[in-house]
Amino acid sequence: MFFRIVLVWLFVSNFSFAYEELALLPRFPPIPADNPQSAEKIHLGKQLFFDQRISEPQTFSCATCHNVMSSGENNLRFSQKPDGTFSRHAVPTVWNSAYLNSFFWGGGASSLEEQSEGPLEEMGLGDTARVVKRVAAIPYYATTFKTIFVDEPVPLNLKNLTKALAAYERTLITPDSAFDRNKLNAEEKSGLSLFKSVGCINCHGGAMFTSDTLQAFPVYPGSNYETKYKLNLEPDHKWKVPTLRNIELTAPYFHNGSVGSLDEAVRVMAKTQLNKDLVEGDVKKLSAFLKTLTGKQPIQLLPRLPKLAD
Amino acid sequence: MFFRIVLVWLFVSNFSFAYEELALLPRFPPIPADNPQSAEKIHLGKQLFFDQRISEPQTFSCATCHNVMSSGENNLRFSQKPDGTFSRHAVPTVWNSAYLNSFFWGGGASSLEEQSEGPLEEMGLGDTARVVKRVAAIPYYATTFKTIFVDEPVPLNLKNLTKALAAYERTLITPDSAFDRNKLNAEEKSGLSLFKSVGCINCHGGAMFTSDTLQAFPVYPGSNYETKYKLNLEPDHKWKVPTLRNIELTAPYFHNGSVGSLDEAVRVMAKTQLNKDLVEGDVKKLSAFLKTLTGKQPIQLLPRLPKLAD
Repeated sequence: MFFRIVLVWLFVSNFSFAYEELALLPRFPPIPADNPQSAEKIHLGKQLFFDQRISEPQTFSCATCHNVMSSGENNLRFSQKPDGTFSRHAVPTVWNSAYLNSFFWGGGASSLEEQSEGPLEEMGLGDTARVVKRVAAIPYYATTFKTIFVDEPVPLNLKNLTKALAAYERTLITPDSAFDRNKLNAEEKSGLSLFKSVGCINCHGGAMFTSDTLQAFPVYPGSNYETKYKLNLEPDHKWKVPTLRNIELTAPYFHNGSVGSLDEAVRVMAKTQLNKDLVEGDVKKLSAFLKTLTGKQPIQLLPRLPKLAD
Repeated sequence: MFFRIVLVWLFVSNFSFAYEELALLPRFPPIPADNPQSAEKIHLGKQLFFDQRISEPQTFSCATCHNVMSSGENNLRFSQKPDGTFSRHAVPTVWNSAYLNSFFWGGGASSLEEQSEGPLEEMGLGDTARVVKRVAAIPYYATTFKTIFVDEPVPLNLKNLTKALAAYERTLITPDSAFDRNKLNAEEKSGLSLFKSVGCINCHGGAMFTSDTLQAFPVYPGSNYETKYKLNLEPDHKWKVPTLRNIELTAPYFHNGSVGSLDEAVRVMAKTQLNKDLVEGDVKKLSAFLKTLTGKQPIQLLPRLPKLAD
């Protein structure tokens, strides 16, 4: 009888908490069948990722906003775009994006390849063809696309540009966090327990600490935080649940970058998403745990960029 | 009698061509006595050089315009500045700037330290104090300045910021050009002879291929080039003679970036500065020689940037 109860409990708990398990970061991210990795493609993608000259104003690269010297984004609330206007939302981190299946705060892309079309359109001031043209005008790129996408009639096109970029981005992995190495101290372990018992894990589960789905924010309207941080300005206030990996580095927080400190972000989340007022001790423990999700960012060797002309 | 004539000729030629000798790039640049190099200072300078967050809009670093993945500048005519306005002149290359004693197109600075105050002022939207404040707000920088400038009452100030940046920039050397390795082919050797006989060497001498002084441009007014490339727009049209090292990479050319091809730049120079119309064969030879001045750009390992807050 006791065992039957335990079995039922296990079944029910696994079922109802289907998204609630945490997992270590897998050593390698999934690689799509139609975009296999190769050293040449990764290197090409890296050059393109860093090359400002392929944007229409010739001053923006992927690396301009996705800073791989620190957080994989730019630590800004809003970001100036190539056309001079500002983004409405904070830039998500590129670190470990290889493990995600949903991109942009509105979840409007389902692969890194698809995601990169957004920034490339911005870099082309509304037209990706402008970027393709700039890439094609650099002799080395024209040749290299032919070498890598050798079987295709038009090797240098938007699709292959996004494939090369995605291939490089799939190398931007931050392994060996304290969490992944199972090196949590007592306070951090308490934080992990709270993370589960308070309910953070409901949305921030899995290896990436995200359900990778859209979620209403705030779930519980009417809090002071909602007014203070302008959380409810946009009519359909549903946002892609962001990863918590490297969260220590990616302030300011939320879609609108309205909160600067991790402690405050924890308070806001508990209140608006779970209707809970945390005591300060628990806030500290949760933040301490979240800081164990900071991985080792691989040092990047800057690529040599090709000459504009032969 | 013959030997006396030769001796007189040697004396006269050495005298009249005092600035006209070329030299190999010295293995190490001069280091000012008040800013000795150290590994720690160079690394700090490198972090600051790449850190966008120290500019007032948090989006501009030295590396934004001085691209060390390619030409040491940005291959643009005019460059958008942190305040949104555009520069009036093209960005000079940071490569080998350690060997220069005159900076900016107007020659307004005489050391790398002094030079860096200009961009830092732009990054602070007119006030370098804003940049110092942003640097000081990042805990790691505050600590590191204390460690490196240990004997000073105020370790983190503008002066030491420029010292750290200059220390890093003095490592941005491109050695081993074909010219420095004495590996010129026949066409390039002809180009070198022309470089001397046509008179390019009058201003572009020394190890850096520049007199490092201001020079009228155009010297001979009234050419078609003057109108075509708007060479005479500014009242006092005297500009710092730029280095020709890595000239192959630093298009577009001249203070106003008005000429895109090296061949055309050679034609314009010969006509406006020396009143000579070159035959096309000589243009090609001169360009071929100038391309032997492309050195080996050292691959840069991107630094890890410190966290915004502890």
